Amino acid sequence: MIYLDNAATSYPKNEPALRRALERYLALGASPGRGGYDRAVETEEMVEKIRRKILRFFGAPPGSHVCFSANATDALNTLIQGLAEPEIHLLSTRLEHNSVLRPLHHIKRNGLLEFDLVDFNLQGFIEPKTMLQYLRPGTRAVIINHASNVLGTVQPIAALGSLLRSRNIALCVDASQSAGLIPIHMEQENIAALAFTGHKSLGGPTGTGALIITPELELKPSRYGGTGVDSLNLYQPAPYPARLEAGTQNMFGILALEECLQTLPHQEQERRLKKELHLTKLLYEALSALPGVNVYGAHDMNRQVPLLSCTVDGMQSSDVGAVLDGDFDIAVRTGLQCAPLVHETLGTSPYGTIRFSLGPHTTQQDVEAAIRAMREIVTACRQEHTV
Amino acid sequence: MIYLDNAATSYPKNEPALRRALERYLALGASPGRGGYDRAVETEEMVEKIRRKILRFFGAPPGSHVCFSANATDALNTLIQGLAEPEIHLLSTRLEHNSVLRPLHHIKRNGLLEFDLVDFNLQGFIEPKTMLQYLRPGTRAVIINHASNVLGTVQPIAALGSLLRSRNIALCVDASQSAGLIPIHMEQENIAALAFTGHKSLGGPTGTGALIITPELELKPSRYGGTGVDSLNLYQPAPYPARLEAGTQNMFGILALEECLQTLPHQEQERRLKKELHLTKLLYEALSALPGVNVYGAHDMNRQVPLLSCTVDGMQSSDVGAVLDGDFDIAVRTGLQCAPLVHETLGTSPYGTIRFSLGPHTTQQDVEAAIRAMREIVTACRQEHTV
Repeated sequence: MIYLDNAATSYPKNEPALRRALERYLALGASPGRGGYDRAVETEEMVEKIRRKILRFFGAPPGSHVCFSANATDALNTLIQGLAEPEIHLLSTRLEHNSVLRPLHHIKRNGLLEFDLVDFNLQGFIEPKTMLQYLRPGTRAVIINHASNVLGTVQPIAALGSLLRSRNIALCVDASQSAGLIPIHMEQENIAALAFTGHKSLGGPTGTGALIITPELELKPSRYGGTGVDSLNLYQPAPYPARLEAGTQNMFGILALEECLQTLPHQEQERRLKKELHLTKLLYEALSALPGVNVYGAHDMNRQVPLLSCTVDGMQSSDVGAVLDGDFDIAVRTGLQCAPLVHETLGTSPYGTIRFSLGPHTTQQDVEAAIRAMREIVTACRQEHTV
Repeated sequence: MIYLDNAATSYPKNEPALRRALERYLALGASPGRGGYDRAVETEEMVEKIRRKILRFFGAPPGSHVCFSANATDALNTLIQGLAEPEIHLLSTRLEHNSVLRPLHHIKRNGLLEFDLVDFNLQGFIEPKTMLQYLRPGTRAVIINHASNVLGTVQPIAALGSLLRSRNIALCVDASQSAGLIPIHMEQENIAALAFTGHKSLGGPTGTGALIITPELELKPSRYGGTGVDSLNLYQPAPYPARLEAGTQNMFGILALEECLQTLPHQEQERRLKKELHLTKLLYEALSALPGVNVYGAHDMNRQVPLLSCTVDGMQSSDVGAVLDGDFDIAVRTGLQCAPLVHETLGTSPYGTIRFSLGPHTTQQDVEAAIRAMREIVTACRQEHTV
C-alpha cells in the first residue's frame, strides 16, 4: 500500500518511540498524583518533566500550562467551552475543521457565545486585514488552524498574533496539521493557546494531544472529576493543569509523546518539511498539468504543508479514491475531510476533493506512482466521456 | 515493591495483551471511519466488532451502543452532561467519586440540573428503600457506583435496577471498581447506562474506557467535532456512537481493551475475585484484630471487592502510608481517594484512610508482609504514645 493519508493519521508510526513508551509504561505501576508512595511521586515528577519539555518544544512563554487531552478535538472543546459565556464574541474561519465549527455552533445555539467566520482568499489564506474587519468590542479570541487540512495552506500566524496582541485579543491556534512539521514558537508568534494532536506529524499514537495555555487566557473547566489534589473540593480545583484535566490520563500516550518529541528537534522538523514539500511540489506540478484536474490552493511551498486537494472533471472524488485504492493500492482521503465550509467556498461541496497527504516515509517512487495512477484515471475518464 | 494500590490503577498490566495491541496498532495505518480505502474500512469494521464484543461482555440489551471515552470520568461526564437540562432531577450517593460529584455540582451551579445524594448505612451500602424516599416526579436517573473505591462494598445494583425500572427511572452505574472483576449483565440487572475504565481490573492501559448506553436513555453530546460521517452537518450527528465520540479515538487503547477482554471470560473473573477476596479476608481479619486499627465497611465477602480502608488511632493516614512505603516498600493509597463525602460520613475527613487494594498478582506473601508491617507500625505508635 502507498499511504498518502498522513493528514488523517501518520503511518507508519514512530515505531521505536512507541515501543520504548510501552516498555516504560509496563514498568510504571502508578498513576501520577494518585498516591503518596515513591513510585507515584516519581511518576508525577516524570509527567511534570514531560510537560516542561512540551512547553519548550512549542516555545511557550513562562507561566504556560500543558493540559493533556484525548485528541485535538478534545483540546479545542476544552478551549472553546472554557471561553464560552453570554455576550462573548469569538472569531474563527471557514477553513476550520468540524472540531472547531461544531463546538462553536452548539455553544452558540445554547446562547453562550457569538461568533463570526472569516473567509479565505482564492489562494486559501486568511488575510489579516479581512480578519480585522470582523473584530467587535466584545471579541475575546480568534481560533484558527495553522495549516488547512484540505488545502495545506499555512496561515500567517505570526502576523495575526502581533495584530491581535496589540488589541488584547487572544490568538488560539489549532496546530493539528502542523505540530511536528513546522517549528512553532508560541511566545514569538504571540499565540495565547495551542491545541495539538500527537498522532499526525509527531508520529505518535491516536488518543493523545494537549491544549497549551498561556497566562493570557482564563478558561473554565468543562470536564469535571478526580484530580488527585484538593479532593475535598466538590468543584474542579482552580490551578492548572488540574482545572482542565479530569480523571486518570493516558500515560502510555504521554510517554509516547515524549519519545516522539525527543526525535524531532527543530532541524529535523525543517529537514523533513523540506523533503516532503519537494515531493508535494512534484505532485502539484504533475497534477496541475493533467487535463481536467483542478488543484486547489496556492502551492507556494514557503507557505504550505505537504498535502494537496484536487478534483477531476466528470468524476466524483470518492470514485477517484476508490480506483486509486482498488486498482493502484494508493490510500488517499476523499470527500469533505471534516471541513465542510472550505468546500462550500471552493465550490467542491458536497462531494469534496481527493486529498493527497505526504509523510516522512513517503518516497519519490510513491509520488510518481500516484502521478501515474492519476494520469491513467484521467485518461480513462476522458476516453469514456469522448465515447 | 509490594503493590497494593490496584484500585488506582492495576499493576502489573496484562503485558501480553498490551504487547499484542501495540503490534496490531503499528500495523494499522488508518483511522476508523476516516477514509474510504480498504484499510480504513477494515479498521472501521474491526472497531465495530470490538464494540459488539464489549456489549456482549457487559450483557448489554439489543440496541445498545459503546461510546469510547478517555477514561471513566470522561464517560461519566458524557452521561451527566448528556442528561442535563433545567428541571431535571438526578439521584446519586455519598459513596461516589469526584468523577460523579464534581459534574453534578458544576452543572447544578449552572442551573441545568437538580440532584440529591443518598447516604449509605453503617456497613457501607446504599439501601434501596432509603433511595426510594428521595425520588421525585422529575427524577430521571440514578447514578451509583457498583463498588465503592473507599470501602469496597458492592451495591445492590440488580435490586435497585428492578425497583427503578418499574418507575421508569434509568439506573446508571459507575463500574470503575468492578468492570473485569464482577461479571455484569446490564440487561438482567436493568442497567440503563454503564461507565467503565480499562485500566483497573480489566488490566488495560489508562486513557481507555467507555460509556455503554441502552435505548432507554437519550443523551445530548457535550464534546463536538469530527466524526468522519455526516461532515456537512455543523452540529454533532444524532446517531450513536458518533453523537458521543468527537475526534479520532485512542486506537491502541481500543485494541488493548479487546485483548484484555479476551483473557477475561466470566469464569476467569469469578476465579480471580474469589482468590483476591480470600486474601482480602485474611487482611481484614488481621487488621481488625490489631489494637487501635479501625477497619471500615461490612466485609461481607459476598458483597465486596478486594479493597479495604482503615485508620490507625494516633497517626495520620498519610504518615502510615509513608512508613509502609519507606520502611516496608509497600504501596497503598492514603487520604480521601477522590471520594470526599464517604469520609465525611465515616468521620475520617479530612485525613482519610489507608486503603489496601489487591489485584490478580497479589500473593499471600504480599498480604502477610502488609499485616506484619501494620503490626509493627501500630506497636511502635502505641509505645511512643505510652512513653
